Order: sequence, then structure tokens, then C-alpha cells
Amino acid sequence: MPALRSWFNIPWGSHFSLANIPFGIISSPSSKNPRVAVAIGDHALDLEAFAANNGFSALSIIQPHQAVFSQPTLNDFAALGRPIHSVVRKYIQDVFNVDTTYPEVLKTNSSLQKQALLPLKEIQTHLPFKIGDYTDFFVGLHHAYNCGVMFRGPENALNPNYKHLPVGYHGRASSVVVSGTPIRRPHGQILLNPAAEKKEPIYTAIKKLDFELELGAFVTKSNNMGEPVPIAEAEQHLFGLVMLNDWSARDVQSWEYIPLGPFNAKNLGTSISPWVVHADALALFKVKGIENDAGVLPYLREKNDENVYDIQLTIDLTSTSGSSATIAKTNGRNLLWSYPQMIAHHTSTGCNLQVGDLLGSGTISSENDRSGFGSLLEQSDNGKVAIKLSGGEERRFLEDGDEVTFSGVCGTDEEALVGFGTVTGRIEPALKL
Amino acid sequence: MPALRSWFNIPWGSHFSLANIPFGIISSPSSKNPRVAVAIGDHALDLEAFAANNGFSALSIIQPHQAVFSQPTLNDFAALGRPIHSVVRKYIQDVFNVDTTYPEVLKTNSSLQKQALLPLKEIQTHLPFKIGDYTDFFVGLHHAYNCGVMFRGPENALNPNYKHLPVGYHGRASSVVVSGTPIRRPHGQILLNPAAEKKEPIYTAIKKLDFELELGAFVTKSNNMGEPVPIAEAEQHLFGLVMLNDWSARDVQSWEYIPLGPFNAKNLGTSISPWVVHADALALFKVKGIENDAGVLPYLREKNDENVYDIQLTIDLTSTSGSSATIAKTNGRNLLWSYPQMIAHHTSTGCNLQVGDLLGSGTISSENDRSGFGSLLEQSDNGKVAIKLSGGEERRFLEDGDEVTFSGVCGTDEEALVGFGTVTGRIEPALKL
Ligand SMILES: [Ca+2]
Ligand SMILES: [Ca+2]
Ligand SMILES: [Mg+2]
Ligand SMILES: [Mg+2]
Ligand code: NI
Repeated sequence: MPALRSWFNIPWGSHFSLANIPFGIISSPSSKNPRVAVAIGDHALDLEAFAANNGFSALSIIQPHQAVFSQPTLNDFAALGRPIHSVVRKYIQDVFNVDTTYPEVLKTNSSLQKQALLPLKEIQTHLPFKIGDYTDFFVGLHHAYNCGVMFRGPENALNPNYKHLPVGYHGRASSVVVSGTPIRRPHGQILLNPAAEKKEPIYTAIKKLDFELELGAFVTKSNNMGEPVPIAEAEQHLFGLVMLNDWSARDVQSWEYIPLGPFNAKNLGTSISPWVVHADALALFKVKGIENDAGVLPYLREKNDENVYDIQLTIDLTSTSGSSATIAKTNGRNLLWSYPQMIAHHTSTGCNLQVGDLLGSGTISSENDRSGFGSLLEQSDNGKVAIKLSGGEERRFLEDGDEVTFSGVCGTDEEALVGFGTVTGRIEPALKL
Repeated sequence: MPALRSWFNIPWGSHFSLANIPFGIISSPSSKNPRVAVAIGDHALDLEAFAANNGFSALSIIQPHQAVFSQPTLNDFAALGRPIHSVVRKYIQDVFNVDTTYPEVLKTNSSLQKQALLPLKEIQTHLPFKIGDYTDFFVGLHHAYNCGVMFRGPENALNPNYKHLPVGYHGRASSVVVSGTPIRRPHGQILLNPAAEKKEPIYTAIKKLDFELELGAFVTKSNNMGEPVPIAEAEQHLFGLVMLNDWSARDVQSWEYIPLGPFNAKNLGTSISPWVVHADALALFKVKGIENDAGVLPYLREKNDENVYDIQLTIDLTSTSGSSATIAKTNGRNLLWSYPQMIAHHTSTGCNLQVGDLLGSGTISSENDRSGFGSLLEQSDNGKVAIKLSGGEERRFLEDGDEVTFSGVCGTDEEALVGFGTVTGRIEPALKL
């Protein structure tokens, strides 16, 4: 498919090509009210201003709902449902098309261009959704295997349930923050010597601060409590995806997590990228995930086995000295379960998902390739192996001042990329307590 | 302390004596808008109506904030903070006192009595808070021990971390419902034969539906992400308590929970009692909890070791045939950690608690006394022992139509009880899928 061409200058290689049209929440120096926008090239199209100036004059279906674009979150827009999102995205693609059906809307309307097209570098992005509940899955099989080998050896690396259901746990919604928010090194209760027979924990600034490279998905359609979402309908409950960094305190985690799972090791903060790439934009990049040889129960069985996304994922780390390195590259296809499967399983006992709920994929790692592992825990083999940055610096876990940046992009045609931009966070030193 | 006496008829033995004044959300046939009320005897005092009719005329401190009483949740009232709650409670106690300082406010104002004092049996109660995040702890030591014995034997019943930190996990906020909401028996992925070497799960209506007797606490003061709440300040973050039933699918739980903890086994529903008993009312009933012989780290150490509550807890079960039994009695003192300790630990890595967050205590069981165990899992020894109801019926786990009711009450003076009322839920048959 040839790239859509625009009358508007979309830089070559932009993550936000005309094929993308991701949604987010912005504010700007001239209007501090957070509101809905789409990213296009290196600009945001302010949909509040666009709507207020008859931008949607040729799209009658959205007109009764235009108040959603003035909201400080995407929840109300998302709740309109995927058929509406589709027509809105297609309409915006048409408006920007070099051969647009509606030149008067924006192409020849320089006053609206000036008002509604804001350079990304001049705006602020905000958390895109009000998140009611956040769930973190664990469906990156190679990550699960790597961690299992570390703690239980290769024979028992994957637990017996692993291939039968998308393993997940409830996460902490309140500490999900938007890209750029600093992350403070936490104190935590840890064992300085985990191998000692007598377990004597201390409360101190943690030593093993880590990231986890994940995707996050937002829910766009609620289900009632007690009513599971059938697998065939689950795709309609998916709004779109972001990049997600599940900051992790490994020394807290290893001490606290038996038997009820990770808690304080994870609730210190989770960062997400600001632009939500819509499921419609990702649909072209569906590929097969990791083969499941265990036999999938009917409530999790999908018609199409191309159910995950071919997203090129990169992790960069920059230290305070400016040393920097791409420390991993992997791909979004390294998942055993798809988002529709996660949704069907999450609701299988009747749990009610709500619009704006966030679903983390779990850490994404490549198979048998240290340079494709999505956490320092795996890359450093729990601190045993040093990772080289440029300039001779090394890392086993994160140090104060380190900035971690994930990026993700679908496609290779530099005029038609469907990218996520980045999610970034910098480690601040621990508080003095 | 002699009981406070009222000019208003508060039935002898009421949970809602003048010593209590619990807060909740009500609606009524004459006004469907959910709004704030307190329970007093077998009536609710509608605080929206009370405020609108100069009920707070003698309490100037609350006057700028009276809009909080028209909200559909207690979040805004809670956010005013404990000093404000204290004066509001004391003022209401004064207004109802036989020797009230302000007779004209309500005692001699029959028109406002008629408007604002609504019989409990004529109103509807609603979920008292908008719950951002729900955390379930596991600090009922005897429950943890009983479950540990069942699955790991008496030697390893308690995990090494158990006495060093309040073990907890993130729960599901969206499926917390108010007392009386029916609970549907879920389907779930389970093993019919967990002992078989080859694990072959099926998706079916679950067999081991259970309850868990817990307390729940609401957060009344937020902390910023990255800033732990010091133990000495934690009590000020506590609004009050409810009874909580953590409905549990034991067959789902045992298959899914390793390694990331309970997920679908718990998110099918959690019921809470509608009236939140304020921490001020409970303060008189503080007692020592279970002795911790492990040495408590300074960030969890409280000045006063009377830090949990003497609450008499009862579990009743009624079947569709009308067979009924009190199947357990225990006490709220059976906790290893207090709510201030749970709050200090929850925030110890910087997690931001928010007003309205719910903190479950974990199941409360007595020591070595089957008639004091807070779950059927423990009472039936995972289905091995039958529990007798009246009329010859038996239970190992819950059956369709069973109604489970928890009640809790502090004190013995029948004119001064500080009680929770009840939390109840009835099991509906599974959907046909
Ligand atoms: Ca994770
Ligand atoms: Ca529980
Ligand atoms: Mg996290
Ligand atoms: Mg529950
Ligand atoms: Ni939540």
C-alpha cells in the first residue's frame, strides 16, 4: 500500500505519519486546559479547537459528541466505541490528504491551521486516560522463561499454568504516570544478604532498580460484572496501545512476592508514552505471536492466529555523564497471548473491565539473545554481568541520574510509520529519610 | 464511660448508637440522588437535607464545605481531613443528645426531623466511596497459618517475610460492590484433578466458591508519589472501617496464583458494608493485636501497641431452604499488623495512596478454633470436612442461593454499641455460557 501523502509537512521518518493518527491529551501555553489531540508529524492537532472551528463540519456522526474533545482524558472519546473512532481517524486522514475532499476545513484554512496545529515541542502531554484499574500481564514468554531459569532453573522455568492462561496480576493505577515524570529511587524493605539462613531485612534505599519494557493497552468498552467478554468480541474492547515502563525494585520483589505476588516492588511508578496508537492503525501490522503448543481452551481461542503486533522496540539508557547506549532491541511479536485473549481471560470469572483500564503486556524479551532482553534483571543475569555503555561506563542495575527511553515503531516505509514515540523517565536520588 | 443518651429513639442494641455516627451514601424514594448521611438507630440522617435546612448553623467550620454532603460519594467529605470529621461527629452527637446545646436545630424542629430522618428500611445504601485502588492485605496471622499448613505443612506454614512486613497485593477496585449486590457463581479456568501429573485445565462453573471475612479501611488523606507516610502520621490517613467479604474462587486461585498471586480468583467481586465506622468511634476499642516476635523495623514501629480493634465478628449462612447457621465467630484483634502499619508499608516505596482507596485486612480467623475461622477453605479443610447448617444441610463450599452475612460490633453496653451493621451477598447460579 503506498503511503498516504499530505499537503502538510510531515517529516520523513516521523512516528506520526498519516497512517497513524494517535490520540493524546495536551495543554499549551495559550490554553492550560488539558484536552484531546492527535499527533501528526511534529505537530499536535488540537481537536477541541478543531471541533470548535467547524473542523468536523463534514462528519455529522461526531457532531453530537464534540464535547468529548474538551475533556481532560480520552475516556469519553474512547467510550464512543471503535466504529466512531474509525470514522474520526479516517476523516482526519482525509482532511490531511494532499487530495482532501474537504480542503476548506484545514488545507486552505490558514487561520485554523495556526490555531489548532501546535508544534509538539511547544505543548505538554498528559496522562491520556483516567485509569480506574491497571493490570499487568506476564505474557512475554522469553522474559518469563529467563526469570524462571534464574530462580528455579531451566527444568521448571515456566510454571504449569503458564501456557494455559495469560498470567497476570492487579497493578497499582494511582502511580501510572506519563512519560517524562521523574522516578525517585525508593526505599524499601530488602535483604542485603538473601542467601543467609536467618532473614534479616532492612529498610533502605534500594539497590536493584530496574525497568521492564512492555506494551500497555487501554480498554474502550466496559463489560458488566458477572458477564465475561467472549473472545470473538474482545477486539472491540481494545482502544489502542502505548509503550509502558514497569519500574521494578528487584530486591524488594524477591523478598516480598511469595505468596501473593509483586506489590511494593511495582507500585512505585509505571510510565507510559503519551500518544495512544489506535488499534485500527496497528491492524496492518498483525503477525503470529509465539506458538502455543499446550492447546488453547475454547474461551481463549481466536479465529485468526495473526493476533499480536510487529512492533520494533528499542531501549536506550543515558547516564548523567552523557554515556549512552541502545541496550536492547526486541519486537512486540514476542508474546504468547494477544490482547483479545488477555481481555477474555481477565473477564472470564466475571471481572468488569471499564473504559480507561490499562493492561500491561508483561516484559517483552527476545529469545536467547541478551541484546534483546527487556529488563536489566535479565541482561545482567541478576547483577552478575555488566552491561557496557559508551565511554566505558557499566550497569548492572539503574543508577541515580540514569534516563531510560523506550521507543516502538511499526513499518519500514519512512513515509508511513506507525510509531509510539517514546516513554522516558529519569532516576532521581532517594529521599533522605 | 456512661452511654450518651438521646432525645431521639435509638433502639436498645442498635449498632448505630450515639457513640457511633457512621457515614454512608443513601438515596430515597423522594430523592434518587445519592448523597451523604449518617446512621443513627434505625434511621439515616440525610446530611444534604440537614445542611440545606441550617442544621449546621452552629458549626461555622463546616459551612464553606457543605457541598460535600450533596456528593454521591464520601470522597470529598473524607478529603476535609480528620480534624473536620471529629467536629462534625461531635456536633451531630450534641444535636442528638438529650441535653443538646442546640435544641432548635433538630430536637424541637419536627419539620426537619420529618425531612431529614429517614427510616433505614425505606432508603437505599450505595458504595460509600469512589475507590481508585483497592489493596488486600493478609495480616490475619491465624488465617495465613491455617492456609500455609494446608498447602505447605506446619513447618513452613508462614513464609519468611510474613512477620517482617504486612503482606498484601493489589486487588480489583472496579468489582467492589455494596452489601446486598448479588454475586454470580463464576466460570473459571480450573483443574478438576489438581493432583494429576498432567495438568489439563477446563473452563467451567467453579466448584469452590468461598468467602473471606475481612475488615476494610478507607484512606482519607493522600500522599504524593515518592513520599512515604511516616508511621507516626499514618493514623491521620485513615478515615474509618467497613466489613468486607473477599469472595474467592478457590479452584481458580490454586491453579492461577503461582508466581504472581491471586487474580481472577478474587476479581469476581468484593462486598462491603454501607456504613463506614469512623476511626474516632473505633478509637475507644483499640487493643493489642497478635504479638510479633520477629522484631519490627523502625518504619513500621508504633508508639502504642494497642493498635488494632476489639470487634466481635460473626458469619451467618442461610441456604435457599431456609437452613441457617452462625458458622463462625471471631474478633478483629486477630491481626498481626495495624492499619497505620499497613499504610506505612504500602507507601514505603513511594506508592501514592489517594482519598477513597480501600485497604482490606486479609481474612480474620481465631487461633486453633474451627468455629472461629473466617473462610470455608479453613473451616472445611479445603472441602474435607462438612459444616452443619440447621435442618441437616451441610456445606464444604458455597452453593447457589446461599446468602452469607458478616456482622461486626464493638462494645457490650447495648446503649452504646459501635457496630458495622452487616455485609451480605447471595450466590446466583452461573450463567449458561
Ligand atoms: Ca511487569
Ligand atoms: Ca483476602
Ligand atoms: Mg510499575
Ligand atoms: Mg474480591
Ligand atoms: Ni484502581
